[in-house]
Amino acid sequence: MELVYDSRGLIPAVVQDNTSGEVLMMAWMNAESLELTQQSGEVHFWSRSREALWKKGETSGNILYLRELFVDCDADTILVKVDASGPACHTGSRTCFFRTFDQEQPNEVG
Amino acid sequence: MELVYDSRGLIPAVVQDNTSGEVLMMAWMNAESLELTQQSGEVHFWSRSREALWKKGETSGNILYLRELFVDCDADTILVKVDASGPACHTGSRTCFFRTFDQEQPNEVG
Repeated sequence: MELVYDSRGLIPAVVQDNTSGEVLMMAWMNAESLELTQQSGEVHFWSRSREALWKKGETSGNILYLRELFVDCDADTILVKVDASGPACHTGSRTCFFRTFDQEQPNEVG
Repeated sequence: MELVYDSRGLIPAVVQDNTSGEVLMMAWMNAESLELTQQSGEVHFWSRSREALWKKGETSGNILYLRELFVDCDADTILVKVDASGPACHTGSRTCFFRTFDQEQPNEVG
């Protein structure tokens, strides 16, 4: 199966806890980070801000261990099921999605 | 909270089944589709290929009903928890992530 990378050579990767089903984070992979993830069993991304390969947990120690990879119907997004050795979020939260988003119309409030 | 849209004015939206926890799909929203989602309680996206607003289920009838919205730590991805009235995938599958992705090194097999 050919993955569909965007014009930057990246594909979004949704990370889900294999046990709880909680969505932990979304980040980007290039072909190399995906290959490293599959080879090592530890999840790697591509950091768009640092323009560098990034092994999740490299500094924090909070490694994400690959359990299963899925690809969506049009092959332009991947779902990475993991076991997390610690908080996935740099804030120390288990998931990066720890805030609800309520209606706060930024402008145009009638 | 200010959401961080990309240079195209889009933000990735991960859609998760509110009951099963299954990740159903990933698509893109612009500010208008997010606003419509919040106002109507039915999930709207922005179609990059058609360059148009797109209410999920508009033609198939498989509406996604908004239950809760989350935003990640750096506010550049949203997580949309939904109740799905039918298959989320245009293939008829419950989720778009119905295929596992196995190691198939495209080239460079030593």
